[in-house]
Amino acid sequence: MSEAAVRLALPDWAAGPLDPPPAGAGDRERMAFAVALARRNVEAGTGGPFGAAVWAGDELLAVGVNVVLAQGASIAHAEVMALAGAQQRVGRPRLAEGPAGAGRPRVALVTSAQPCVMCFGAVLWAGVDELVIGARGEDVESLAGFDEGPLPAAWPAELAARGIAVRRDVEREAARAVLAAYAARGGPRY
Amino acid sequence: MSEAAVRLALPDWAAGPLDPPPAGAGDRERMAFAVALARRNVEAGTGGPFGAAVWAGDELLAVGVNVVLAQGASIAHAEVMALAGAQQRVGRPRLAEGPAGAGRPRVALVTSAQPCVMCFGAVLWAGVDELVIGARGEDVESLAGFDEGPLPAAWPAELAARGIAVRRDVEREAARAVLAAYAARGGPRY
Repeated sequence: MSEAAVRLALPDWAAGPLDPPPAGAGDRERMAFAVALARRNVEAGTGGPFGAAVWAGDELLAVGVNVVLAQGASIAHAEVMALAGAQQRVGRPRLAEGPAGAGRPRVALVTSAQPCVMCFGAVLWAGVDELVIGARGEDVESLAGFDEGPLPAAWPAELAARGIAVRRDVEREAARAVLAAYAARGGPRY
Repeated sequence: MSEAAVRLALPDWAAGPLDPPPAGAGDRERMAFAVALARRNVEAGTGGPFGAAVWAGDELLAVGVNVVLAQGASIAHAEVMALAGAQQRVGRPRLAEGPAGAGRPRVALVTSAQPCVMCFGAVLWAGVDELVIGARGEDVESLAGFDEGPLPAAWPAELAARGIAVRRDVEREAARAVLAAYAARGGPRY
Protein backbone atom coordinates (compact mmCIF):
# COMPACT_ATOMS: atom_id res chain seq x y z
CA MET A 1 0.00 0.00 0.00
CA SER A 2 2.06 2.94 1.16
CA GLU A 3 5.79 3.27 0.82
CA ALA A 4 7.43 2.66 4.18
CA ALA A 5 9.84 5.53 3.55
CA VAL A 6 10.12 8.68 1.54
CA ARG A 7 13.43 9.45 -0.11
CA LEU A 8 14.31 12.91 -1.41
CA ALA A 9 17.61 13.19 -3.25
CA LEU A 10 19.56 16.26 -4.28
CA PRO A 11 21.10 16.39 -7.76
CA ASP A 12 24.35 14.44 -8.12
CA TRP A 13 26.35 17.64 -8.39
CA ALA A 14 25.22 18.71 -4.92
CA ALA A 15 27.29 15.93 -3.35
CA GLY A 16 30.24 18.15 -4.19
CA PRO A 17 32.79 19.41 -4.42
CA LEU A 18 31.09 22.73 -3.91
CA ASP A 19 32.75 26.02 -3.10
CA PRO A 20 31.43 27.30 0.19
CA PRO A 21 32.73 30.54 1.67
CA PRO A 22 35.52 30.40 4.24
CA ALA A 23 35.03 30.42 8.00
CA GLY A 24 34.03 33.82 9.22
CA ALA A 25 32.03 34.63 6.11
CA GLY A 26 29.17 37.05 6.54
CA ASP A 27 25.69 37.19 5.12
CA ARG A 28 26.74 38.42 1.70
CA GLU A 29 29.29 35.69 1.09
CA ARG A 30 26.92 33.03 2.34
CA MET A 31 24.17 34.37 0.14
CA ALA A 32 26.46 34.38 -2.88
CA PHE A 33 26.93 30.66 -2.21
CA ALA A 34 23.17 30.02 -1.92
CA VAL A 35 22.55 31.97 -5.12
CA ALA A 36 25.28 30.01 -6.88
CA LEU A 37 23.49 26.81 -5.88
CA ALA A 38 20.27 28.17 -7.34
CA ARG A 39 22.05 29.15 -10.55
CA ARG A 40 23.71 25.77 -10.88
CA ASN A 41 20.35 24.07 -10.41
CA VAL A 42 18.95 26.11 -13.29
CA GLU A 43 21.94 25.67 -15.56
CA ALA A 44 22.16 21.93 -14.93
CA GLY A 45 18.44 21.60 -15.55
CA THR A 46 18.01 19.84 -12.23
CA GLY A 47 15.26 22.01 -10.76
CA GLY A 48 13.80 25.37 -9.93
CA PRO A 49 15.76 28.59 -9.36
CA PHE A 50 16.16 28.29 -5.61
CA GLY A 51 19.12 27.46 -3.37
CA ALA A 52 19.66 27.35 0.37
CA ALA A 53 22.25 26.33 2.92
CA VAL A 54 22.39 25.82 6.67
CA TRP A 55 25.30 26.74 8.90
CA ALA A 56 25.93 26.09 12.58
CA GLY A 57 28.51 28.70 13.47
CA ASP A 58 31.13 28.38 10.74
CA GLU A 59 30.21 24.82 9.86
CA LEU A 60 28.21 24.24 6.69
CA LEU A 61 25.73 21.52 7.67
CA ALA A 62 23.80 21.04 4.45
CA VAL A 63 22.76 22.56 1.16
CA GLY A 64 19.44 22.39 -0.65
CA VAL A 65 18.02 23.19 -4.03
CA ASN A 66 14.52 22.87 -5.40
CA VAL A 67 14.02 19.32 -6.70
CA VAL A 68 10.22 19.25 -6.82
CA LEU A 69 9.93 17.99 -10.37
CA ALA A 70 12.96 15.70 -10.34
CA GLN A 71 11.86 14.02 -7.13
CA GLY A 72 8.12 14.14 -7.74
CA ALA A 73 7.71 15.77 -4.34
CA SER A 74 5.97 19.08 -3.74
CA ILE A 75 7.72 19.48 -0.39
CA ALA A 76 11.18 19.37 -1.98
CA HIS A 77 11.80 23.11 -1.89
CA ALA A 78 15.37 24.32 -1.36
CA GLU A 79 14.74 25.34 2.24
CA VAL A 80 13.13 22.02 3.18
CA MET A 81 15.96 20.06 1.56
CA ALA A 82 18.60 22.10 3.38
CA LEU A 83 16.85 21.95 6.75
CA ALA A 84 16.07 18.25 6.52
CA GLY A 85 19.59 17.50 5.34
CA ALA A 86 21.05 19.45 8.24
CA GLN A 87 18.79 17.70 10.73
CA GLN A 88 19.70 14.31 9.31
CA ARG A 89 23.34 15.22 9.71
CA VAL A 90 23.06 16.27 13.35
CA GLY A 91 20.48 13.62 14.16
CA ARG A 92 17.79 15.72 15.77
CA PRO A 93 14.70 17.62 14.67
CA ARG A 94 15.68 20.95 16.16
CA LEU A 95 19.03 22.17 14.90
CA ALA A 96 19.68 24.60 17.74
CA GLU A 97 19.06 23.25 21.19
CA GLY A 98 18.89 25.53 24.18
CA PRO A 99 19.39 29.29 24.24
CA ALA A 100 21.87 30.92 21.91
CA GLY A 101 25.11 32.19 23.35
CA ALA A 102 27.09 30.38 26.03
CA GLY A 103 29.20 28.77 23.33
CA ARG A 104 26.38 27.32 21.30
CA PRO A 105 26.90 28.09 17.62
CA ARG A 106 24.13 30.07 15.99
CA VAL A 107 22.23 28.22 13.31
CA ALA A 108 21.46 30.11 10.12
CA LEU A 109 19.36 29.23 7.11
CA VAL A 110 20.43 31.26 4.10
CA THR A 111 18.00 31.08 1.19
CA SER A 112 18.15 32.69 -2.21
CA ALA A 113 14.48 33.65 -2.11
CA GLN A 114 11.78 34.43 0.41
CA PRO A 115 10.25 31.22 1.77
CA CYS A 116 6.76 30.27 0.65
CA VAL A 117 4.16 29.66 3.32
CA MET A 118 5.12 25.99 3.64
CA CYS A 119 8.79 26.81 4.07
CA PHE A 120 7.92 29.62 6.48
CA GLY A 121 6.30 26.98 8.65
CA ALA A 122 9.24 24.64 8.18
CA VAL A 123 11.58 27.39 9.38
CA LEU A 124 9.47 27.85 12.51
CA TRP A 125 9.91 24.23 13.55
CA ALA A 126 13.47 23.55 12.44
CA GLY A 127 15.32 25.25 15.28
CA VAL A 128 17.18 28.00 13.47
CA ASP A 129 18.38 31.26 14.99
CA GLU A 130 18.68 33.27 11.80
CA LEU A 131 16.93 33.43 8.45
CA VAL A 132 18.79 35.27 5.71
CA ILE A 133 16.84 35.98 2.51
CA GLY A 134 17.88 37.12 -0.96
CA ALA A 135 15.03 37.80 -3.38
CA ARG A 136 11.66 39.04 -2.16
CA GLY A 137 8.39 37.18 -2.56
CA GLU A 138 7.30 39.64 -5.23
CA ASP A 139 10.47 38.88 -7.17
CA VAL A 140 9.67 35.17 -7.09
CA GLU A 141 6.15 35.80 -8.32
CA SER A 142 6.86 38.50 -10.91
CA LEU A 143 10.13 37.18 -12.35
CA ALA A 144 9.70 33.41 -12.18
CA GLY A 145 5.93 32.98 -11.82
CA PHE A 146 5.95 30.83 -8.69
CA ASP A 147 3.20 31.20 -6.10
CA GLU A 148 4.41 32.02 -2.58
CA GLY A 149 1.06 31.27 -1.00
CA PRO A 150 -0.73 33.28 1.68
CA LEU A 151 2.01 34.10 4.16
CA PRO A 152 0.81 35.78 7.33
CA ALA A 153 1.12 39.51 6.78
CA ALA A 154 3.41 39.86 9.77
CA TRP A 155 5.60 36.87 8.96
CA PRO A 156 8.91 38.56 9.87
CA ALA A 157 7.45 39.56 13.22
CA GLU A 158 6.13 36.05 13.75
CA LEU A 159 9.63 34.69 13.25
CA ALA A 160 11.13 37.35 15.50
CA ALA A 161 8.60 36.50 18.20
CA ARG A 162 9.98 32.95 18.15
CA GLY A 163 13.55 34.13 18.47
CA ILE A 164 14.43 33.87 14.77
CA ALA A 165 16.24 36.92 13.42
CA VAL A 166 15.35 37.80 9.83
CA ARG A 167 17.60 39.66 7.41
CA ARG A 168 16.23 40.44 3.96
CA ASP A 169 17.39 41.79 0.60
CA VAL A 170 20.86 40.28 0.96
CA GLU A 171 22.35 40.16 -2.56
CA ARG A 172 18.82 40.62 -3.80
CA GLU A 173 19.86 41.61 -7.30
CA ALA A 174 21.99 38.49 -7.75
CA ALA A 175 19.10 36.35 -6.54
CA ARG A 176 16.69 38.14 -8.86
CA ALA A 177 19.02 37.49 -11.77
CA VAL A 178 18.71 33.72 -11.26
CA LEU A 179 14.93 33.95 -11.21
CA ALA A 180 15.02 35.91 -14.45
CA ALA A 181 17.45 33.44 -16.02
CA TYR A 182 15.11 30.59 -15.18
CA ALA A 183 12.19 32.36 -16.80
CA ALA A 184 14.30 33.22 -19.85
CA ARG A 185 15.06 29.53 -20.31
CA GLY A 186 11.34 28.77 -20.21
CA GLY A 187 11.64 26.87 -16.95
CA PRO A 188 8.33 25.35 -15.86
CA ARG A 189 6.18 27.11 -13.29
CA TYR A 190 4.63 24.84 -10.69
CA MET B 1 29.49 17.77 3.57
CA SER B 2 25.76 17.50 3.02
CA GLU B 3 23.86 14.28 2.70
CA ALA B 4 22.96 13.65 -0.91
CA ALA B 5 19.52 12.44 0.10
CA VAL B 6 17.04 12.74 2.92
CA ARG B 7 15.20 9.63 4.02
CA LEU B 8 12.06 9.74 6.15
CA ALA B 9 10.68 6.41 7.29
CA LEU B 10 7.35 5.54 8.81
CA PRO B 11 7.23 3.14 11.77
CA ASP B 12 7.56 -0.53 10.86
CA TRP B 13 3.93 -1.15 11.72
CA ALA B 14 2.80 1.33 9.05
CA ALA B 15 3.97 -1.04 6.32
CA GLY B 16 0.87 -3.03 7.21
CA PRO B 17 -1.32 -4.83 7.31
CA LEU B 18 -3.56 -1.94 8.23
CA ASP B 19 -7.32 -1.90 8.18
CA PRO B 20 -8.50 0.78 5.78
CA PRO B 21 -12.19 1.33 5.19
CA PRO B 22 -13.84 -0.32 2.19
CA ALA B 23 -14.38 1.28 -1.19
CA GLY B 24 -17.14 3.83 -1.04
CA ALA B 25 -16.33 4.88 2.50
CA GLY B 26 -17.24 8.42 3.43
CA ASP B 27 -15.50 11.06 5.50
CA ARG B 28 -16.37 9.53 8.85
CA GLU B 29 -15.02 6.08 8.04
CA ARG B 30 -11.89 7.53 6.52
CA MET B 31 -11.38 9.74 9.52
CA ALA B 32 -11.81 6.80 11.87
CA PHE B 33 -8.92 5.18 9.99
CA ALA B 34 -6.73 8.31 10.27
CA VAL B 35 -7.50 8.60 13.96
CA ALA B 36 -6.68 4.90 14.44
CA LEU B 37 -3.28 5.56 12.85
CA ALA B 38 -2.72 8.42 15.29
CA ARG B 39 -3.75 6.23 18.21
CA ARG B 40 -1.48 3.40 17.12
CA ASN B 41 1.42 5.85 16.81
CA VAL B 42 0.85 6.91 20.41
CA GLU B 43 0.34 3.42 21.78
CA ALA B 44 3.37 2.03 19.95
CA GLY B 45 5.45 4.95 21.18
CA THR B 46 6.51 5.72 17.63
CA GLY B 47 5.57 9.38 17.51
CA GLY B 48 3.12 12.18 18.10
CA PRO B 49 -0.67 11.88 18.18
CA PHE B 50 -1.33 12.61 14.53
CA GLY B 51 -2.37 10.42 11.61
CA ALA B 52 -3.28 11.09 8.00
CA ALA B 53 -4.07 9.26 4.79
CA VAL B 54 -4.45 10.14 1.11
CA TRP B 55 -6.99 8.64 -1.25
CA ALA B 56 -7.45 9.01 -4.98
CA GLY B 57 -11.04 8.05 -5.51
CA ASP B 58 -11.40 4.78 -3.60
CA GLU B 59 -7.72 3.96 -3.72
CA LEU B 60 -5.68 4.48 -0.57
CA LEU B 61 -2.40 5.92 -1.84
CA ALA B 62 -0.46 6.40 1.39
CA VAL B 63 -0.66 6.83 5.12
CA GLY B 64 1.33 9.08 7.42
CA VAL B 65 1.95 9.56 11.10
CA ASN B 66 4.08 12.05 12.96
CA VAL B 67 7.65 10.74 13.14
CA VAL B 68 9.45 13.99 13.98
CA LEU B 69 11.39 12.63 16.94
CA ALA B 70 12.00 9.13 15.58
CA GLN B 71 13.33 10.47 12.29
CA GLY B 72 15.01 13.58 13.64
CA ALA B 73 13.11 15.64 11.10
CA SER B 74 10.89 18.58 11.94
CA ILE B 75 9.08 18.27 8.61
CA ALA B 76 7.95 14.72 9.36
CA HIS B 77 4.39 15.62 10.33
CA ALA B 78 1.62 13.14 9.50
CA GLU B 79 0.30 15.22 6.60
CA VAL B 80 3.73 15.65 5.01
CA MET B 81 4.50 11.95 5.33
CA ALA B 82 1.17 10.99 3.75
CA LEU B 83 1.40 13.52 0.92
CA ALA B 84 5.03 12.73 0.12
CA GLY B 85 4.33 9.01 0.28
CA ALA B 86 1.40 9.39 -2.09
CA GLN B 87 3.44 11.50 -4.50
CA GLN B 88 6.26 9.00 -4.43
CA ARG B 89 3.76 6.29 -5.24
CA VAL B 90 2.24 8.07 -8.23
CA GLY B 91 5.56 9.57 -9.31
CA ARG B 92 4.61 13.21 -9.60
CA PRO B 93 4.54 16.27 -7.35
CA ARG B 94 0.90 17.15 -7.89
CA LEU B 95 -1.39 14.32 -6.99
CA ALA B 96 -4.36 15.55 -8.99
CA GLU B 97 -3.61 16.68 -12.49
CA GLY B 98 -6.11 18.63 -14.52
CA PRO B 99 -9.61 19.64 -13.48
CA ALA B 100 -11.69 17.36 -11.32
CA GLY B 101 -14.53 15.49 -12.91
CA ALA B 102 -14.36 13.91 -16.37
CA GLY B 103 -13.38 10.63 -14.82
CA ARG B 104 -10.42 11.88 -12.79
CA PRO B 105 -10.62 10.53 -9.23
CA ARG B 106 -10.79 13.17 -6.54
CA VAL B 107 -7.78 13.28 -4.25
CA ALA B 108 -8.45 13.65 -0.54
CA LEU B 109 -6.13 14.20 2.41
CA VAL B 110 -7.78 13.08 5.62
CA THR B 111 -5.95 14.21 8.74
CA SER B 112 -6.74 13.60 12.38
CA ALA B 113 -5.95 17.21 13.31
CA GLN B 114 -5.92 20.64 11.76
CA PRO B 115 -2.70 21.17 9.80
CA CYS B 116 -0.09 23.51 11.23
CA VAL B 117 1.07 26.40 9.09
CA MET B 118 3.79 24.28 7.44
CA CYS B 119 1.33 21.53 6.56
CA PHE B 120 -1.22 24.10 5.39
CA GLY B 121 1.39 25.20 2.87
CA ALA B 122 2.19 21.61 1.99
CA VAL B 123 -1.50 21.00 1.27
CA LEU B 124 -1.57 24.00 -1.07
CA TRP B 125 1.19 22.58 -3.27
CA ALA B 126 0.39 18.86 -3.17
CA GLY B 127 -2.49 18.79 -5.63
CA VAL B 128 -5.36 17.64 -3.46
CA ASP B 129 -9.03 18.32 -4.07
CA GLU B 130 -10.27 17.79 -0.54
CA LEU B 131 -8.95 18.32 2.98
CA VAL B 132 -10.85 16.53 5.73
CA ILE B 133 -9.95 17.49 9.31
CA GLY B 134 -10.71 15.91 12.68
CA ALA B 135 -9.55 17.88 15.70
CA ARG B 136 -9.35 21.67 15.64
CA GLY B 137 -6.19 23.68 16.09
CA GLU B 138 -7.29 24.72 19.55
CA ASP B 139 -7.68 21.05 20.48
CA VAL B 140 -4.10 20.38 19.39
CA GLU B 141 -2.82 23.28 21.43
CA SER B 142 -4.97 22.87 24.54
CA LEU B 143 -5.00 19.07 24.82
CA ALA B 144 -1.56 18.09 23.55
CA GLY B 145 0.43 21.31 23.83
CA PHE B 146 1.65 21.48 20.24
CA ASP B 147 2.06 24.83 18.50
CA GLU B 148 0.11 25.20 15.26
CA GLY B 149 1.94 28.34 14.22
CA PRO B 150 0.46 31.49 12.73
CA LEU B 151 -1.98 30.20 10.14
CA PRO B 152 -3.54 32.87 7.96
CA ALA B 153 -6.83 33.85 9.61
CA ALA B 154 -8.76 32.94 6.48
CA TRP B 155 -6.97 29.65 5.85
CA PRO B 156 -10.10 27.68 4.88
CA ALA B 157 -10.99 30.40 2.38
CA GLU B 158 -7.43 30.38 1.04
CA LEU B 159 -7.74 26.67 0.38
CA ALA B 160 -11.18 27.08 -1.16
CA ALA B 161 -9.84 29.82 -3.43
CA ARG B 162 -7.36 27.28 -4.78
CA GLY B 163 -10.06 24.71 -5.41
CA ILE B 164 -9.49 22.67 -2.27
CA ALA B 165 -12.68 21.81 -0.40
CA VAL B 166 -12.33 21.78 3.40
CA ARG B 167 -14.48 19.78 5.78
CA ARG B 168 -13.86 20.16 9.51
CA ASP B 169 -14.88 18.62 12.80
CA VAL B 170 -15.20 15.12 11.30
CA GLU B 171 -15.05 12.67 14.21
CA ARG B 172 -13.61 15.53 16.22
CA GLU B 173 -14.24 13.87 19.57
CA ALA B 174 -12.40 10.71 18.59
CA ALA B 175 -9.48 12.78 17.36
CA ARG B 176 -9.49 14.82 20.56
CA ALA B 177 -9.38 11.63 22.60
CA VAL B 178 -6.07 10.63 20.99
CA LEU B 179 -4.59 14.03 21.77
CA ALA B 180 -5.68 13.67 25.37
CA ALA B 181 -4.31 10.12 25.56
CA TYR B 182 -0.94 11.34 24.36
CA ALA B 183 -0.85 14.04 27.00
CA ALA B 184 -1.93 11.57 29.67
CA ARG B 185 1.04 9.36 28.77
CA GLY B 186 3.34 12.35 29.20
CA GLY B 187 4.23 12.40 25.51
CA PRO B 188 6.81 15.04 24.66
CA ARG B 189 5.75 18.39 23.26
CA TYR B 190 7.92 19.70 20.46
